[in-house]
Amino acid sequence: MDDKYFIEKAIELATENVKSGAGGPFGAVIVKDGKIIATGVNSVTSENDPTAHAEVKAIRNACEKLNDYQLDGCTIYSSCEPCPMCLGAIYWARPAKLVFAATKKDAAEAGFDDAFIYDELAVPVNSRKLYTEIVKTNNKIKPFELWKKTQDKIAY
Amino acid sequence: MDDKYFIEKAIELATENVKSGAGGPFGAVIVKDGKIIATGVNSVTSENDPTAHAEVKAIRNACEKLNDYQLDGCTIYSSCEPCPMCLGAIYWARPAKLVFAATKKDAAEAGFDDAFIYDELAVPVNSRKLYTEIVKTNNKIKPFELWKKTQDKIAY
Repeated sequence: MDDKYFIEKAIELATENVKSGAGGPFGAVIVKDGKIIATGVNSVTSENDPTAHAEVKAIRNACEKLNDYQLDGCTIYSSCEPCPMCLGAIYWARPAKLVFAATKKDAAEAGFDDAFIYDELAVPVNSRKLYTEIVKTNNKIKPFELWKKTQDKIAY
Repeated sequence: MDDKYFIEKAIELATENVKSGAGGPFGAVIVKDGKIIATGVNSVTSENDPTAHAEVKAIRNACEKLNDYQLDGCTIYSSCEPCPMCLGAIYWARPAKLVFAATKKDAAEAGFDDAFIYDELAVPVNSRKLYTEIVKTNNKIKPFELWKKTQDKIAY
């Protein structure tokens, strides 16, 4: 079983997810040592959770299974290029490899905001369409100072 | 109660979270009609969930409370500039406004990967430190084609 096999599985999940009405046309599988250890499908509307994208769901499921907050040695297969949220989640999970099939352009053509969000992240905070304010306060650094001097913390 | 009040609340949550050992030095609150409707703190290590950042947790909590997958008219206050995952989540939740205090530079100085991930998203897929493959398959577009022709879907 190779990349092609697992990516077709992710695409099948995406198609089934539209048929079932659970959410958008996206699926993901996570593979470790040649075996699928978790899957995920978009369930934003059925779970009332805007973060419930296929990759995020698959990462959560895989981490629960591995009892870890990292996906060491895993490969994430996604039916479509991850949106910035999912790509960020993938970086935080630190898998060995990412594989996808459709692109953010394909997603945009189907009506999804992926390309728009990529564009927004690339511009300065005060030029974004999302109205954003930065509040100046001397306290902003306090949580970091406490974190840095805490000895028995779990870094991630 | 103004922006300063709510951002100080988010910073307090971040500090308390380090003290309790639940996770990293980050907190968020979500406000609607002048009232806090949900909060979130980083619980990556205590929940074995790399997506359990403060903003993601707060968004999930707020959506559960509102029984919706959108945060219409809400403001998200975060103790620190959201990482790409969280900023993506915020765009998908579509609040009216985002407010933060510390910056991604502050987070990077405390040892967090936020700035690194921002840099990675800005470079082409094949130049990223995360090894990424794009599998060519004619099936890649099938889920989107089915989505587009499905009549009774819930778009998001």
